[in-house]
Amino acid sequence: MLAERKTLGLYLLDCLKKEGIQEIFGVPGDYNFSLLDTLKDYEGIQFVNNRNELNAGYAADAYARLNGISALITTFGVGELSACNAIAGSYSESVPVIHIVGSPKSAMQEEKALAHHTLMDRDFDVFRKVYDNLTAYTAVLTPENAAREIPAAIEVAKKKKKPVYLSVAIDLVTQPIIPSEKQTIEEGTKDSALKAAIAHSNTLLAGAKNAVILADMKTIRYGLQDLVQQLAEQWNVPVTSSMQGKSAFDESHPQYIGVYGGAFGDQEVTKIVEGADTVIAVGALWSDVNTSKNTIKLDPLKVVEIQPDSVKVGEASYMKIQAADFIRELSGIGFKQEGKLPETSFPYDTVTGGAEEPIRAASYYPRIQHMLKENDVIVTETGTFSYGMSQVRLPKGATYIAQGGWQSIGYATPAAFGSCIAARDRRVLLFTGDGSLQLTVQEISSMLENDCKPIIFVLNNDGYTIEKYLNVQVKVEKQTYNEIPMWNYTKLPEVFGRDVFTAQVKTNAQLDEAISQVEKLNGEQFCLIELIVDDPMDAPSYLQKMQEAMEQ
Amino acid sequence: MLAERKTLGLYLLDCLKKEGIQEIFGVPGDYNFSLLDTLKDYEGIQFVNNRNELNAGYAADAYARLNGISALITTFGVGELSACNAIAGSYSESVPVIHIVGSPKSAMQEEKALAHHTLMDRDFDVFRKVYDNLTAYTAVLTPENAAREIPAAIEVAKKKKKPVYLSVAIDLVTQPIIPSEKQTIEEGTKDSALKAAIAHSNTLLAGAKNAVILADMKTIRYGLQDLVQQLAEQWNVPVTSSMQGKSAFDESHPQYIGVYGGAFGDQEVTKIVEGADTVIAVGALWSDVNTSKNTIKLDPLKVVEIQPDSVKVGEASYMKIQAADFIRELSGIGFKQEGKLPETSFPYDTVTGGAEEPIRAASYYPRIQHMLKENDVIVTETGTFSYGMSQVRLPKGATYIAQGGWQSIGYATPAAFGSCIAARDRRVLLFTGDGSLQLTVQEISSMLENDCKPIIFVLNNDGYTIEKYLNVQVKVEKQTYNEIPMWNYTKLPEVFGRDVFTAQVKTNAQLDEAISQVEKLNGEQFCLIELIVDDPMDAPSYLQKMQEAMEQ
Repeated sequence: MLAERKTLGLYLLDCLKKEGIQEIFGVPGDYNFSLLDTLKDYEGIQFVNNRNELNAGYAADAYARLNGISALITTFGVGELSACNAIAGSYSESVPVIHIVGSPKSAMQEEKALAHHTLMDRDFDVFRKVYDNLTAYTAVLTPENAAREIPAAIEVAKKKKKPVYLSVAIDLVTQPIIPSEKQTIEEGTKDSALKAAIAHSNTLLAGAKNAVILADMKTIRYGLQDLVQQLAEQWNVPVTSSMQGKSAFDESHPQYIGVYGGAFGDQEVTKIVEGADTVIAVGALWSDVNTSKNTIKLDPLKVVEIQPDSVKVGEASYMKIQAADFIRELSGIGFKQEGKLPETSFPYDTVTGGAEEPIRAASYYPRIQHMLKENDVIVTETGTFSYGMSQVRLPKGATYIAQGGWQSIGYATPAAFGSCIAARDRRVLLFTGDGSLQLTVQEISSMLENDCKPIIFVLNNDGYTIEKYLNVQVKVEKQTYNEIPMWNYTKLPEVFGRDVFTAQVKTNAQLDEAISQVEKLNGEQFCLIELIVDDPMDAPSYLQKMQEAMEQ
Repeated sequence: MLAERKTLGLYLLDCLKKEGIQEIFGVPGDYNFSLLDTLKDYEGIQFVNNRNELNAGYAADAYARLNGISALITTFGVGELSACNAIAGSYSESVPVIHIVGSPKSAMQEEKALAHHTLMDRDFDVFRKVYDNLTAYTAVLTPENAAREIPAAIEVAKKKKKPVYLSVAIDLVTQPIIPSEKQTIEEGTKDSALKAAIAHSNTLLAGAKNAVILADMKTIRYGLQDLVQQLAEQWNVPVTSSMQGKSAFDESHPQYIGVYGGAFGDQEVTKIVEGADTVIAVGALWSDVNTSKNTIKLDPLKVVEIQPDSVKVGEASYMKIQAADFIRELSGIGFKQEGKLPETSFPYDTVTGGAEEPIRAASYYPRIQHMLKENDVIVTETGTFSYGMSQVRLPKGATYIAQGGWQSIGYATPAAFGSCIAARDRRVLLFTGDGSLQLTVQEISSMLENDCKPIIFVLNNDGYTIEKYLNVQVKVEKQTYNEIPMWNYTKLPEVFGRDVFTAQVKTNAQLDEAISQVEKLNGEQFCLIELIVDDPMDAPSYLQKMQEAMEQ
């Protein structure tokens, strides 16, 4: 058997390729050279350099959201620890990323040498212990365990949709591995549980007149979008999504009513969802973000909650049910909602604001909604943009990428890079703010170096506007710590040595003109549009309502 | 008693101020607002914004190296995890940094809510557990334990010279604390141990003809420089330092012979140290860096190893001896070395290279040595610069800042910022490479924003030259992963919106001219000099010798 003679490095790459990974992100370091050398000569996977490891982790996260799974290579200690925040983010957001770390020579580890890139305490296991807290699986690879540990880690990542961690000593990468039995975790559906849950759901649905489907984050992560759409069409019920579940349901679909945001979101949607006699919640996460700080009002007795491997009907939990099996079964129970679907208006459907007026949230979000195209990848930064963009209606086939729950500022720029690499044939748009961009700005260089041509909107509102909104205890004038240096954002590409399209816009007419130029370029050039707002506290209404609620 | 009524936040700041902390680095986030609001109104400590948390951690590390101790404020999860690498670096390098984290409302934590910035698993202790691996002390502060835990953490940081971690819920910062007894760890010297160690050292020194003092890293961290100098002068013995201990001994002192670098360093120094009949090693760390990959040849039976709280004479260990007590005692034993001190030449004493010739390591290091002034703070990045700069003779009073053991690339730029803040009256010089600068470039913006005026040298050798040297397994041409995008480094200040002095130099004459202009500016302006070398593999001889040794 050929596999028996494979080196650890080649076996690892074969396993990753089998999962559809075509690019691996990362940063070189002296303990991962043998990994990168193996990868260099390997056909089918490219190494993509990032400007630092945090950015590499963010890029890998976005790549996994588009590609299903991704991988990241860092070096021991100094490299891997820079990626902690990104990997924790993948955990929080249920994104499967394989984090591979190149570690010192095994002899050095056995001798417990005082090696560089260690804590100088002779402990070579300490960084794995750090990651034990932030991933769903960790293993230190050896030729003896690789054939067992690598598939096991990948399986955990895929099934749990969580990051996993594998480290390998630099000298073991080129060692032939010893074959091992693969152990598969069987996680099928238990028939009796499925039947009972369906029967219980049936009693809830009997006589339902205004049921609603709520498609949330894990609908996307577990690839349940098509099944949910079939169910919705079969049943003729309106569909909403949560803040973190945005784009779980085709927003151009006639049954889509908008994002459900409790007290802060569109009140038409809130009314429909909270007035429903039954809510089918798919892949829900009841976080503070998704519950709009606990302002949503759903009666748990009216909810059928479909999780990846369980179902809850009212107060009854049914375990060992795969979500896909349950949704298929639900589609077939013969339920059909009578009557006309509710019609909702979307807040940014109508383009407003005079040509010479300064741009405002109320005027630029409609323009953004208007310019979006089918199959766009829309990457949105945490901050004011994430609240505004949540209310923008997306076109068919669009993928929406944002850290809805982890909310680490700086994520979106490297995530846009990862998106460009994962989906070279799709248009990628990045919506970021000045404060956030400054954290991870160097990844724009990686985009340019890799000939990526995203359209980047930088909202320059002169500071951490989102933070100013969130700190309701203190007057904005006193929050000097929420101020940031003013940069010339459109000069960034000059530093990075590339010819690109840039524009600074202050009025609606300038924004219209910039958008029209970007559209003429038709993806041929990297584009950066700086939105300069003259009122630093200008913000979408969602955020204003949230602030009001927090003040009470 | 007034202290009884103090809020937790004020008590914390009082404790930090007492340690001489005048600035705290960090990044705002919604869970640390109450800490920043308290700090905003507090007299005697300023908050200094960084562009991201990794940079904040690096800046705090350098600040502590100059100031003795430092502090850092981040936000829960997303903020604190970005600083893991920096804090681990402080641990590895024995630098006391107080990492303070603002966490979610205590009620939210008690309810185990699915809050943003969590792993969405209801665990609010997980990030502290991460830091348990990377710090010498962690505590979750409450009004009940603050008066005990804060002094305890600071004491551990000071005594162990390690980072510590304190987190506090946003709502508890403004709560009055409950007083508590301070428990002090007494760590004095045990008289009998001291006497025995001195007696043993005496037998080793009896008849010593060419003893040498080796001043290493912990000499600096534990502030033993003056005592070591007194000892050296008293005894009339030559003094060397290690790679990681550079600047532990005044390099302009006539008894200083240069850095001891085993097979890679100056061979005159190696000969003297390895030919010594007794070596007094102060604060030594026998890392792979300091032992020049195990090429140093010291007979342990000839070594008196003085550690912060123990002494080893030959194979005998003596515990419970404070280094300062032991060195004072040694100074008084009456030893005096006969004969002339050895004279060594320093590799970069003579300025070489024709005016129109392209700059080379051999030509720019002497020019750098020549331009250095008394009391300069010299911050050196890991990479080719760290090997070359180790051989540059420093002027009196100079402080040398580098991550000799942790070696995280990207450290030096934020560290230079931290140095500027810690030592506003001293000249700060940063020596960094193109590869490293790209990781943490945004901190140049923080320097400009805070009116810092360092002199920055960027070595542009078109890639990770250091890594190309270290990977001896593979030809350089095949190491495409060690290539980086080419930037216009001198355009960076334009992006950051400031008027500064910049120069690009390719020849020795251009370098001389740039240095002369910088000197004329006399600290009035931020200066950035890009050294463009036409041979990407040009490197100091230390690195070349290291590569040769690794190839064997």
